[in-house]
Amino acid sequence: MGLPGEFALIARHFRRLAGPAALDLKDDAAVLDPPPGRQLVLAADAMVAGVHFLAEDPPETIGRKLLRVNLSDLAAMGATPLGYLMTTALPPGTSDAWLGRFVDGLAADQAAFGLSVLGGDTVSIPGPMTLSLTILGSVAPGAALRRQGARPGDALWVSGTLGDGALGLRVLQGKLPGDAAGHLARRYRLPEPRLALGSALAGVARATMDVSDGLVQDLGHLCRAGGCGAVLKADSVPLSPAARALVEADPALLPLLLTGGDDYELLFAAPATAEAEILARAAAAGVAVTLIGGFVAGPPEVQVRGPDGAPMTLPAGGWSHF
Amino acid sequence: MGLPGEFALIARHFRRLAGPAALDLKDDAAVLDPPPGRQLVLAADAMVAGVHFLAEDPPETIGRKLLRVNLSDLAAMGATPLGYLMTTALPPGTSDAWLGRFVDGLAADQAAFGLSVLGGDTVSIPGPMTLSLTILGSVAPGAALRRQGARPGDALWVSGTLGDGALGLRVLQGKLPGDAAGHLARRYRLPEPRLALGSALAGVARATMDVSDGLVQDLGHLCRAGGCGAVLKADSVPLSPAARALVEADPALLPLLLTGGDDYELLFAAPATAEAEILARAAAAGVAVTLIGGFVAGPPEVQVRGPDGAPMTLPAGGWSHF
Repeated sequence: MGLPGEFALIARHFRRLAGPAALDLKDDAAVLDPPPGRQLVLAADAMVAGVHFLAEDPPETIGRKLLRVNLSDLAAMGATPLGYLMTTALPPGTSDAWLGRFVDGLAADQAAFGLSVLGGDTVSIPGPMTLSLTILGSVAPGAALRRQGARPGDALWVSGTLGDGALGLRVLQGKLPGDAAGHLARRYRLPEPRLALGSALAGVARATMDVSDGLVQDLGHLCRAGGCGAVLKADSVPLSPAARALVEADPALLPLLLTGGDDYELLFAAPATAEAEILARAAAAGVAVTLIGGFVAGPPEVQVRGPDGAPMTLPAGGWSHF
Repeated sequence: MGLPGEFALIARHFRRLAGPAALDLKDDAAVLDPPPGRQLVLAADAMVAGVHFLAEDPPETIGRKLLRVNLSDLAAMGATPLGYLMTTALPPGTSDAWLGRFVDGLAADQAAFGLSVLGGDTVSIPGPMTLSLTILGSVAPGAALRRQGARPGDALWVSGTLGDGALGLRVLQGKLPGDAAGHLARRYRLPEPRLALGSALAGVARATMDVSDGLVQDLGHLCRAGGCGAVLKADSVPLSPAARALVEADPALLPLLLTGGDDYELLFAAPATAEAEILARAAAAGVAVTLIGGFVAGPPEVQVRGPDGAPMTLPAGGWSHF
């Protein structure tokens, strides 16, 4: 009796991603020894073709983006990756060649980030390709970074550069100049989860999250969780040279950088006195961090100040599906 | 600043499913203390409207089916449920009322099976509703039931009754007589994960899996994993009164019962000498089990014998997506 199609597909493509706990993807479930003396950290994200990625994106980057978006959630908790489960709903005609490249990308990122697949499911969908990934990580007991905890007077920090992903999407859509091989498009397709920085922030950051739905909207979450307001200085927000060039050519793009989403940088609150400590830890982690504002007493609102110090009004709060 | 739509939706519907480790679904990830001295068991399954459930199914049963399908994977490993993460890709127009009933169903099953939600994601899809669930459970170290291990001479057992789900789907599709309130339709919409039986089989079953893609196809997996063949006696396969009535009226339905899928019963191998022990443990777990054949030396093939003892030829091996 030969293997039916679905199982042959798993054997041909996904088995090479399996770690020891996955039991070669031949059983009903994985069996994993949890790391002794650690807490588990768990998150899940889904991506739909045409919503979260472009159907014509290179297959190699699609699975990697999904994995990295989930790794970014682990980074925001200060956790170390353990493994993941992935379900793929594939439209008719998804080719073997496409799947091979999709899995090649995942294999590269598994090696880069030190984790492997634990299990999953592969089904057919009469609609857009839909991928879902659940990630597992671990932290020392009580060391998980949380969104709650920002206090008035705390400094507001962000890692890396903002807005590249939002601009990169528009480059790929032909709405902005640039090409698919450039920095901005790459940042849209392959976000950089800040795992080393997340681990380094334990004990010094008071509140942390990753920026996925736009800086201003996500800062609102830190405000609500902390029960305080925040002031964001727009001209302090770190931009890549490619983003800066576009904004200098068209200053009307600035709001997009602050609200556009797809950044996957860490946004965090820390005592104002911890500036030197933060800079030293970030340097040791190999990630630039920038002071972009601070938390203030008052209602959980975000005040954005323009280059002249006056309040800026932004057209939209951030990305929402509904 | 008000909550954007996606977060309001999570607050309004999904938060009531959250257990303590879920941090009220307000953080980037859940933080879970793994049960001390246990191994983790992990599985994931996806369901697509029109493929795995009917878009017109009652919202209460759709989430419960997804949860139960995953719980069935835990049962097949002899594991105890811990929690789950769920991603929902919702088409435009999914109403608040629909979501309320969907979550009502999940809440009922969380109480029935003793677990709660750890996290997830809610996104929009320009296509059919697509749901993905990752389940976590635990087992005593080394006690997980595996698919490998069946040996020639072992008895072949199955729990409950077979074919109800496949017949129930056809009742709901109007292809067979019956109604949506009947036993068969209910078995299609709400499979019964055999968790108590799975736990009870540790130490006596040599190989175990759950029947999800059809009895004959899934028995083939046990054969390949064990490196032996199997003989299945078609007239020993346990049928519910409703299924038996349909097959007596139309004997041509028998192959469907053996290959149709959606059973979620446990299929297992055990030493022939363990018959009394198996029956006692199953009785204590409150589940009927039936001896339906045995394993034989030879290639990993399934021989189905009809009521006259002669080989039966079946039209299809089971359900595959590809």
